Amino acid sequence: MTAEAWLDQEQKRYVDELIAFIRIPSVSAKPENMGDVQKAAEWVAERVKRAGIDNARVLPTAGHPVVYADWMHAGADKPTVMIYGHFDVQPAEPYELWDSAPFEPEIRGDRIYGRGASDDKAGMMTPILAVEALLKTTGKLPVNVKLFFEGQEEIGSPDLPDFVRDNVDLLKADMIFSADGLQWTPEQPMLVDALKGMAKMEIVVQGPRSDQHSGLHGAAIANPAMALAQILASMKSLDGLITVEGFYDDVIPLSEEDRAEIARVPYDEAEYLAESGAPATFGEPGYTTRERLWARPALDVNGLTSGYQGIGSKTVHPAEARAKITCRLVAAQDPVKIYNQLEAHVRKHTPHGVTVRFENAGGGSVPYHVPAGHNATAVAREVLAEVFGVEPYRTRSGGSIPVMSTLLDYLGVHAVMFGWSMGDENLHAPNEFARIGVYRKGQSAYVRLLEKLGG
Amino acid sequence: MTAEAWLDQEQKRYVDELIAFIRIPSVSAKPENMGDVQKAAEWVAERVKRAGIDNARVLPTAGHPVVYADWMHAGADKPTVMIYGHFDVQPAEPYELWDSAPFEPEIRGDRIYGRGASDDKAGMMTPILAVEALLKTTGKLPVNVKLFFEGQEEIGSPDLPDFVRDNVDLLKADMIFSADGLQWTPEQPMLVDALKGMAKMEIVVQGPRSDQHSGLHGAAIANPAMALAQILASMKSLDGLITVEGFYDDVIPLSEEDRAEIARVPYDEAEYLAESGAPATFGEPGYTTRERLWARPALDVNGLTSGYQGIGSKTVHPAEARAKITCRLVAAQDPVKIYNQLEAHVRKHTPHGVTVRFENAGGGSVPYHVPAGHNATAVAREVLAEVFGVEPYRTRSGGSIPVMSTLLDYLGVHAVMFGWSMGDENLHAPNEFARIGVYRKGQSAYVRLLEKLGG
Repeated sequence: MTAEAWLDQEQKRYVDELIAFIRIPSVSAKPENMGDVQKAAEWVAERVKRAGIDNARVLPTAGHPVVYADWMHAGADKPTVMIYGHFDVQPAEPYELWDSAPFEPEIRGDRIYGRGASDDKAGMMTPILAVEALLKTTGKLPVNVKLFFEGQEEIGSPDLPDFVRDNVDLLKADMIFSADGLQWTPEQPMLVDALKGMAKMEIVVQGPRSDQHSGLHGAAIANPAMALAQILASMKSLDGLITVEGFYDDVIPLSEEDRAEIARVPYDEAEYLAESGAPATFGEPGYTTRERLWARPALDVNGLTSGYQGIGSKTVHPAEARAKITCRLVAAQDPVKIYNQLEAHVRKHTPHGVTVRFENAGGGSVPYHVPAGHNATAVAREVLAEVFGVEPYRTRSGGSIPVMSTLLDYLGVHAVMFGWSMGDENLHAPNEFARIGVYRKGQSAYVRLLEKLGG
Repeated sequence: MTAEAWLDQEQKRYVDELIAFIRIPSVSAKPENMGDVQKAAEWVAERVKRAGIDNARVLPTAGHPVVYADWMHAGADKPTVMIYGHFDVQPAEPYELWDSAPFEPEIRGDRIYGRGASDDKAGMMTPILAVEALLKTTGKLPVNVKLFFEGQEEIGSPDLPDFVRDNVDLLKADMIFSADGLQWTPEQPMLVDALKGMAKMEIVVQGPRSDQHSGLHGAAIANPAMALAQILASMKSLDGLITVEGFYDDVIPLSEEDRAEIARVPYDEAEYLAESGAPATFGEPGYTTRERLWARPALDVNGLTSGYQGIGSKTVHPAEARAKITCRLVAAQDPVKIYNQLEAHVRKHTPHGVTVRFENAGGGSVPYHVPAGHNATAVAREVLAEVFGVEPYRTRSGGSIPVMSTLLDYLGVHAVMFGWSMGDENLHAPNEFARIGVYRKGQSAYVRLLEKLGG
């Protein structure tokens, strides 16, 4: 029997198992669900064992546990492939907006509704079931496999960096695939080539020691809110170019091929603007909206605070003014270097009559960018094209996924996102669902991936 | 007997009366003291009657009452002189910072301590006592006199404009003197030639309909907080010049004489900076600190609000950003014209990708500036020089006194501040006090003023 035939034969059971998995309310954010996250970890470890990997085990972290399993019998000449996923889910609130109870999964047509169905329980099951199909039908796997599932992705994986750092030998792999990922549509696969990194800064401009009467002082001492405005305005030109000295220095320019890949992905300006309700698109000159979002760095003012903010008017000269700033970085920008450039720029552009200081520094992350010609990505591309029947889009994300940076930092490996969620599946929202047909496709995709990687 | 001799003879009683007046807790801001404000009005009207003006009466407004009295028997060839003051006081909180109870006045040396002692009960008494001294010793007054005292100055005189507008005939006068005013020091008199007016604006910059994920949108739609910073920065040069088109057009330039008068008033930069704790002075190029504060217009950002303002960082792209702005105006700037210039400037400098709107418009006030050679001011100068023995400083104020604008608007008369408070007398603060010696001097000053005005 082929692995494909096995998957077809077992599919009804696999759907039932996914339903059982979704029934566990493994909400990592809520203390009252701590036991459920643990229960989900144990369920996963047990399921991996039944798939044929005996050493599956739940390991503790400083917070929610991880599940680890490996099958290392393919031989030293075969690569070691890690597959990542997560078994925790977002809170389901507000319950009243769900058409069926979030932890009592319901099948409607091709869809299974329930919190975590798409993010990431269906996705996380697919490599386990692919491993089972291969082990049950061939008695072995084509490559060495490490399964690494976590229970705190939805709260930002706070304890994962320490766990990975402390278990580098255990987790060491030649390639990493993440079963937590998106496809463009059920018909159109995609590969995510890059995620943005981040640098953070809070600027505090100080004038007088406390808020002052504007009539007694406004005309003769510098206004921190105006000074802050001048500092911020110095950081970006009116046409959208970031004017912080050196900011773009390390950005890897987009090649013609990069731009062609991005342009191939359908884009509808009206649809994009409808998402946010913004009156127009706007950004770095010389780039398309998609290029700005996916492949160019950004500097965002996240918040402003100064003086009187209540109703009406108050003739106050503020003591201080604050701006929170985050920069979304692209390869090969370095968050520490960018932070230092920002700080130097702000100091240089702080006008006379106020002082400036910085708060909440640090906590940045490195941009993630799969190198061109990366072998794991090449194989993933082939598999997606075969399973979906069309060439995958090459996309990038304007956001950041900390776990991808963590794996890159400690293991030195660019993970390839190889998951099956779609943007319309209400991730993090009421009425989350997974597509049963795509769940099945994902299982085949992991079988083919492992086979191809095995040569 | 001369009026001076009378004042000397009655002084002990006059101090006792001031103490009785301060005992009435006429706090206009506190509803529980409403009856006390009324009581103070009645006390004042009664006191004016005893001074010899029989028609003194308490008149209602939409809020706290006023006291009005007139003596119009000097003849049609004599000017009619209005004297203004207020019988309400600031709240006394925090009580625990007072060395003696605020409404149980205590004499310590030359000082009477109590809430309202200086602002404005001692000041308000001086014209009443001067009128009494003249009437008791000469049987008449050298000019026609209208006394007009209000009970809501400390809450911004909300009902006074309507009252003045509805009683223009009653209040009509050739000259107005305000017994609510300051002298430089007990030894050094001053005249206030100008008060600033005001224009107010709230700028609201709108981007997306709600706060957005900065990774999903930051790079491709305009950031309202950055746009607001750019708008604000366009309104002032880095060296402090207001760059709103036309802003300075109507400003009456400082003459060499004006500048010399201002320069004559002692100024200590370190002392000035210590008041607010600002690191340096800063303002319009080409002017001294005093000139900026007293005689040049200002544009102040009073508050900023946008996006996330809590602790730490949040990768939000704000939906909107707000700035509250007030401009302090000097003669002959017009608040409506300035508002319109600001609005036109903001519209012109709003960058691409956001929209702008304005809230809380209106409520401005006209700058007040005594014309050069103003006859009431000339007489006041002479009197101050005689009573204090030195030439008064000619000063201006960076603040605004709405009642002065109200009297100018409806009666067409520039009021001359002719009061006896000093900056060190803890006005609006714990341990407010009035100086007994200056209280006596103020009585003489009003006697001389009325005599001189009578020719």
